[in-house]
Amino acid sequence: MPTRKESDSLGNLEVPIEAYYGIYTQRAKANFSITNHHVNMDLINAITIIKKAAALVNKDLKLLSESISDAIVASCDEILGGSHYESFITHPLQGGAGTSTNMNVNEVIANISIENLGGKKGDYHIVHPIDHVNCSQSTNDVYPTAIRIAAINKIRCLAEVLSNLQESLQQKENEFSEVLKLGRTQLSDALPITLGQEFGAYSKAISRDRWRIYKVEERLREVNIGGTAIGTGLNAPQEYIYRMTDKLQRLTGLGIARSDLLVDTTQNTDVFVEVSGLLKACAVNIIKISNDLRLMGSGPKGGLSEIYIEPRQAGSSIMPGKVNPVICEMMVQVAYKIIGNDSSITLSAFSGQLELNAFSPLIAECLLESLDLLINSIPIFDKDCIQSVKANERHCLDVLKKSSALSAVLIDYIGYDQASAIAKESFEKDISIETLLLSKKIFNETEINKIFNVYQVTKPGIPGRS
Amino acid sequence: MPTRKESDSLGNLEVPIEAYYGIYTQRAKANFSITNHHVNMDLINAITIIKKAAALVNKDLKLLSESISDAIVASCDEILGGSHYESFITHPLQGGAGTSTNMNVNEVIANISIENLGGKKGDYHIVHPIDHVNCSQSTNDVYPTAIRIAAINKIRCLAEVLSNLQESLQQKENEFSEVLKLGRTQLSDALPITLGQEFGAYSKAISRDRWRIYKVEERLREVNIGGTAIGTGLNAPQEYIYRMTDKLQRLTGLGIARSDLLVDTTQNTDVFVEVSGLLKACAVNIIKISNDLRLMGSGPKGGLSEIYIEPRQAGSSIMPGKVNPVICEMMVQVAYKIIGNDSSITLSAFSGQLELNAFSPLIAECLLESLDLLINSIPIFDKDCIQSVKANERHCLDVLKKSSALSAVLIDYIGYDQASAIAKESFEKDISIETLLLSKKIFNETEINKIFNVYQVTKPGIPGRS
Amino acid sequence: MPTRKESDSLGNLEVPIEAYYGIYTQRAKANFSITNHHVNMDLINAITIIKKAAALVNKDLKLLSESISDAIVASCDEILGGSHYESFITHPLQGGAGTSTNMNVNEVIANISIENLGGKKGDYHIVHPIDHVNCSQSTNDVYPTAIRIAAINKIRCLAEVLSNLQESLQQKENEFSEVLKLGRTQLSDALPITLGQEFGAYSKAISRDRWRIYKVEERLREVNIGGTAIGTGLNAPQEYIYRMTDKLQRLTGLGIARSDLLVDTTQNTDVFVEVSGLLKACAVNIIKISNDLRLMGSGPKGGLSEIYIEPRQAGSSIMPGKVNPVICEMMVQVAYKIIGNDSSITLSAFSGQLELNAFSPLIAECLLESLDLLINSIPIFDKDCIQSVKANERHCLDVLKKSSALSAVLIDYIGYDQASAIAKESFEKDISIETLLLSKKIFNETEINKIFNVYQVTKPGIPGRS
Amino acid sequence: MPTRKESDSLGNLEVPIEAYYGIYTQRAKANFSITNHHVNMDLINAITIIKKAAALVNKDLKLLSESISDAIVASCDEILGGSHYESFITHPLQGGAGTSTNMNVNEVIANISIENLGGKKGDYHIVHPIDHVNCSQSTNDVYPTAIRIAAINKIRCLAEVLSNLQESLQQKENEFSEVLKLGRTQLSDALPITLGQEFGAYSKAISRDRWRIYKVEERLREVNIGGTAIGTGLNAPQEYIYRMTDKLQRLTGLGIARSDLLVDTTQNTDVFVEVSGLLKACAVNIIKISNDLRLMGSGPKGGLSEIYIEPRQAGSSIMPGKVNPVICEMMVQVAYKIIGNDSSITLSAFSGQLELNAFSPLIAECLLESLDLLINSIPIFDKDCIQSVKANERHCLDVLKKSSALSAVLIDYIGYDQASAIAKESFEKDISIETLLLSKKIFNETEINKIFNVYQVTKPGIPGRS
Repeated sequence: MPTRKESDSLGNLEVPIEAYYGIYTQRAKANFSITNHHVNMDLINAITIIKKAAALVNKDLKLLSESISDAIVASCDEILGGSHYESFITHPLQGGAGTSTNMNVNEVIANISIENLGGKKGDYHIVHPIDHVNCSQSTNDVYPTAIRIAAINKIRCLAEVLSNLQESLQQKENEFSEVLKLGRTQLSDALPITLGQEFGAYSKAISRDRWRIYKVEERLREVNIGGTAIGTGLNAPQEYIYRMTDKLQRLTGLGIARSDLLVDTTQNTDVFVEVSGLLKACAVNIIKISNDLRLMGSGPKGGLSEIYIEPRQAGSSIMPGKVNPVICEMMVQVAYKIIGNDSSITLSAFSGQLELNAFSPLIAECLLESLDLLINSIPIFDKDCIQSVKANERHCLDVLKKSSALSAVLIDYIGYDQASAIAKESFEKDISIETLLLSKKIFNETEINKIFNVYQVTKPGIPGRS
Repeated sequence: MPTRKESDSLGNLEVPIEAYYGIYTQRAKANFSITNHHVNMDLINAITIIKKAAALVNKDLKLLSESISDAIVASCDEILGGSHYESFITHPLQGGAGTSTNMNVNEVIANISIENLGGKKGDYHIVHPIDHVNCSQSTNDVYPTAIRIAAINKIRCLAEVLSNLQESLQQKENEFSEVLKLGRTQLSDALPITLGQEFGAYSKAISRDRWRIYKVEERLREVNIGGTAIGTGLNAPQEYIYRMTDKLQRLTGLGIARSDLLVDTTQNTDVFVEVSGLLKACAVNIIKISNDLRLMGSGPKGGLSEIYIEPRQAGSSIMPGKVNPVICEMMVQVAYKIIGNDSSITLSAFSGQLELNAFSPLIAECLLESLDLLINSIPIFDKDCIQSVKANERHCLDVLKKSSALSAVLIDYIGYDQASAIAKESFEKDISIETLLLSKKIFNETEINKIFNVYQVTKPGIPGRS
Repeated sequence: MPTRKESDSLGNLEVPIEAYYGIYTQRAKANFSITNHHVNMDLINAITIIKKAAALVNKDLKLLSESISDAIVASCDEILGGSHYESFITHPLQGGAGTSTNMNVNEVIANISIENLGGKKGDYHIVHPIDHVNCSQSTNDVYPTAIRIAAINKIRCLAEVLSNLQESLQQKENEFSEVLKLGRTQLSDALPITLGQEFGAYSKAISRDRWRIYKVEERLREVNIGGTAIGTGLNAPQEYIYRMTDKLQRLTGLGIARSDLLVDTTQNTDVFVEVSGLLKACAVNIIKISNDLRLMGSGPKGGLSEIYIEPRQAGSSIMPGKVNPVICEMMVQVAYKIIGNDSSITLSAFSGQLELNAFSPLIAECLLESLDLLINSIPIFDKDCIQSVKANERHCLDVLKKSSALSAVLIDYIGYDQASAIAKESFEKDISIETLLLSKKIFNETEINKIFNVYQVTKPGIPGRS
Repeated sequence: MPTRKESDSLGNLEVPIEAYYGIYTQRAKANFSITNHHVNMDLINAITIIKKAAALVNKDLKLLSESISDAIVASCDEILGGSHYESFITHPLQGGAGTSTNMNVNEVIANISIENLGGKKGDYHIVHPIDHVNCSQSTNDVYPTAIRIAAINKIRCLAEVLSNLQESLQQKENEFSEVLKLGRTQLSDALPITLGQEFGAYSKAISRDRWRIYKVEERLREVNIGGTAIGTGLNAPQEYIYRMTDKLQRLTGLGIARSDLLVDTTQNTDVFVEVSGLLKACAVNIIKISNDLRLMGSGPKGGLSEIYIEPRQAGSSIMPGKVNPVICEMMVQVAYKIIGNDSSITLSAFSGQLELNAFSPLIAECLLESLDLLINSIPIFDKDCIQSVKANERHCLDVLKKSSALSAVLIDYIGYDQASAIAKESFEKDISIETLLLSKKIFNETEINKIFNVYQVTKPGIPGRS
């Protein structure tokens, strides 16, 4: 492969002649390329937006010439348009607190700009990755700011897919509002409930997730851009700092705000632990719902068989007709990954020392992955699983009637002792409580319908009484 | 030990004749007493308050006679006054979703009441643990409601101790506002900063914790009391449900509210994951601060020696004069325990199935322990560590001047190349940059004082320029 | 409370006059008493054994007088006999890497000895906590050695209870060897299996746990006693080091060995992470088994109802006859606590710095708690749950026959297509496959019995063929 | 894109005409493609080896024709040669317990074979993905077997890189055996030690990791191939099972053995938790070593400056000459990711139900990723960090002499009180203890050299005495 020579304070290195990245990126590749994963592209894009904003502000402040600034802005737009995906090659688990990713972006922007200005890649006299593209900046203010921008964008997507999921659950709540079934506590037969009430509980849980996710955005808005290396802002003009938040607001459409205390925002990462903790709460709800669906859909003969989830793929080569709740299983794994990521994020966050957190690349990687996993899996869960659920209404009612759940309803009418006796006889003879009550002439059919009415046995109060 | 005989649906059992608890508790002791830990007493108290509220409401609704209700209320007051601590013997890791703890409270209240009404313990015709003390209730609505009440009380304490801690950190921010020192990123020498700015960052981080904790209370206020076994409220009068939240508000002084959807609040526990996640974010800040203090206080000769923490105990029998930052070390361990608890809480929470979470006793245990640990350790951290910190001002300045940090300040005056050369010479000869600049007559003393002014080198902009 | 005055390098302090502990413990109490938990008594005992061994060796080496050594030995025996439980008051989450617990033991031994020698508590001229009781030792070699001794003792107990559990599971494997039932993958109906095979799998899993636990003991045997403060052994006579391991072997009956490299054993704690990781693997198996039992025991009408677990306590006040699998639920919570503890242990372990790990008290607390939880809960699980399990044989067979599981067996006889058709008809008409085959005269009863024989359909190969 | 039509039990679907994968894979792509990650290629290869072994055994048993078997074997060899990377497109977090990945391999092998036999892709009459490629197999025996094979291969690589790392650490132990320095406990000045002893401790820790990793291989060797869907082996000929382990041994060169109890090995995944736990122990050691290096290399002026790690990349654009310990930082992040993965693995493992674990795809993904991360990062850590470490010998000695560490050595000569006084004077006047002792004529130079000899102060016993 033909190469060009580049140099930095450590010496010279050959870089592929066609590469838009340069020596810093090349060194990072050698140091950190331990798997074939790359930095999340949305983080690259967020950094690129900051570069664009900085180029514009630096031009206004006469820190960059118009032509260089314009070239940088144009290059940023190329990247944001999706053209240079293959040039961003740094590994997510890099040392250096994000310096390599920041330099990767700086170098790619510089070389695109150089080419657009008629130069050859590597001729940094035309546009310099540090002096021009990184002007007034430091990795330590660019990188944390970029994580926040990328995270907010994803959080908004997440809020939306959660909102859609909640709606689907609510529709099922309505659809199943008269599907009477046996409720269970600790997997043991308990009291009557409707399938609709169960989906109502899921819907409510997801609505809490949506609210949490929506509210946490405000905590992410405060950025440390302008703080330079340690948040004191040394060598960044006052005016630059103020203008940057304005510019970022305009370029991102987000309510980006300057942090009250740049030193704090540069070194502390507790806000990412907070966000990840909320994703974990969401994961907990996802697991609960998925496992409930798996349980209610279990069978068809040897399980609960209360619901039917549309098959998404054949389940077995050896067992004819077998289908498995694969989407639910995927969701549980997504959730388990998020819980694992939360652990990595927590460890990284508490390992910050003094003026900086050296492990923010792992925070960025895990947080953005967790968000991506939810954003991309929930619509599948919604459309291909939740919306496809059908009730096995007949079976639900049969099981309820065979259970002793309805005996609890009788206590107020015939006393605890007789209710227990009926329940026992029903269980032992495997005859429904209704049939028993009729055959024993304790109640007639009209009375039974009144007492065991779906609206009564699943609502507060004594069924059949006002 | 003399005993009395009690019986339940499983048969008879001997209970110590003096015990206020009864057969349900006795069985629970046999089933679950795997270590010598007991259920958190604040959870017992929260359950007791609910019992008191229920007795009052049940009396109003004519579900309990005045004398029985009054006896129950008086018994609750005895417990809340601290008199029956030794009667609450159930283990935190109990099966049964809290039934044993609920029954423990029911039985103790019943037996106190019986005695107060002139009967003998165990004569449940007088006051019955289930029919009277548990009237209109189920473990499944009492227990989750009690966790929330206990948690809110603790959360308020936590918000207060965090507020005090933040104030102490702020005082140190002011006290150290002119202590100039070397900032470090990734443990490598970076730019100048003040010790005050560092404490300012700590203060800011803790203020976020306080805010998070304060805000999350509103999420805990919604309770499912009245939902009975599965949240549908079967057999609990409508009127009872409404009156209970009013009564609980009055008895607790907290803004308790009825959940929108009792079925949801009965089965879902994501709100505890949310709270625990915020405690984890707090733990992360505590670790960061504690470790920074340990690092800055390291030495006295072989460490950073920037600060001095008041000794709390002799550090070694073999090394004369050695002292260790033991309070910081305790805090880190508190934080690590909270992170471990968060893991247990998460697992328990996502393991809920259908209408109930069988593992809420572990959630309660871990969440309340995490809160207790923070509430009780932070005041020690505050008073015996943070408030005792003194700056090693002289040494801080010496190190800064020997470092190349000040060379970054020079870039704007003498260019990057000359600044680098000065930095290199300073490092190699171990002479301060100031001395070098003077000896080379690059600047005179007035100029140096202006350029290297504490207010300048730790603020945005180019030091020494407007 | 009457007090006596004691002093250390930090100054004077009043100690309760009756207390066997002294000023070091008193300070520790003030610094760390954040909850009402105390250090695990088995750790105290292990430290006491080391004190006894050291007193004996120091006497042999003429470092202690015979009378002082004898007094110390006698005091240790009192403690080991269980007499001074209330004197050990340090909190598990103490700073100082165990110094407070070590000093607590030193002080209690000193004061018992002083009294036994006719002096008054606090008169350390007679027997001194540091000069005599701690002679040739440092917290930093005593404490890690004690954790290992306590852990090995517990590990042996655990191996034994696991062995018993495995035996019970094996008995059930035999007992249920002909209980044919429906196997399920992903909760969906799969192929035939016997309940015995399922218990066989549980037994096998537990046998792996037993083996792991048994084997890991050898990794814990290597101790750093004699390494003093940082493992270099400064100020500990060579001879002392060698004699101590011999003495500890004799006093503990364990294969204690001197570490190859005391510096390593003093600072590194990865072995505790290894042990905790194995406990976590055990926890995983416990959860799997417990949840399977909960699932197979679910019902009685609305669940799988394949097994029956003996009730341990009444399950509900509102639902007559309800019982819950409370022992299984306890076990899951024990396991979740162990997983949480593993997290705390891991964090503590990797936070060691240079010559010592300041967070070993949390490691000790969590590791010993995890062991205690397993040691004390597994016998309950074994006796009150596993041994009580009965098969619902009739129902198991009914469900199997209604399922399409047996159709897979037919493939080899009648081809995939006809087998599928039979399965489909069976499902739709809710008629057993056997009945269908008979009514369609595809097979006669003898053939069916041969094909669907329990020994055939749950073993490798084509059922009914050689 | 041109397509071909394929069909399965759910209906028809268009598949890209050029794709080697088929309808099962196409459905999996639609169901699970939530990020751009793919299943670990080494898992694909392990499955492919099983397919090859099965084709050979099935041929021997006359279950497959020679021509089809040969075609399958040849296709497997193409894949193993690296030619069809782009055809394996299933997502790691798939539902279905690995069915999709197994079918992806089945389909790709079938279509390669079809083409090689002169047919067109999708013409499964020639070679069928299920009937031929999957003959005698089930996902549920293939997939767990493949995870084990892939894991053993990686474990062997890991053992080797750990061995190399240990050797490098040992070389440094020798190289630094006379570099005397200050030891520190709890970051406070403690006793003298050599830098060599510290690297000796690191080497020892890594040797434990190597041993653990090496030993755990035997636990992974037991595979369930032949167990088919639930481990009972239904429809797999006895002979097939025995021959498969032989064949796998020959093809893999690993000591693959048939599990004692296929039902157990099919459903239980605790062995992966065990392996992951050992990787976590390794991660703990990696973090400890990396953080120690970061600490000892901190500075150059404001840190410990005891060692010098070769720079791998420029550290800052704003701070001239700054370099950061980026390889150590990468290693810590690798370790944190492994700890996060361990969490995901644990959760997945305990979530197995009855005859299968539906979440084994996440186990596979996380376990193999953890292994890859270690295998690929440790050689970089070894070569680019550990081997590059140089001692700052002069500074180490200076700091030691200024510290009070040497005063502990003096206790035996001049008594505790005078030693303390010397230490105090040395600290206050900032004069080395040696100089003080000489100026006070307490010892002459020869005596001092004898007492403070590196071999003496870092070894057991009283320095300067025999």
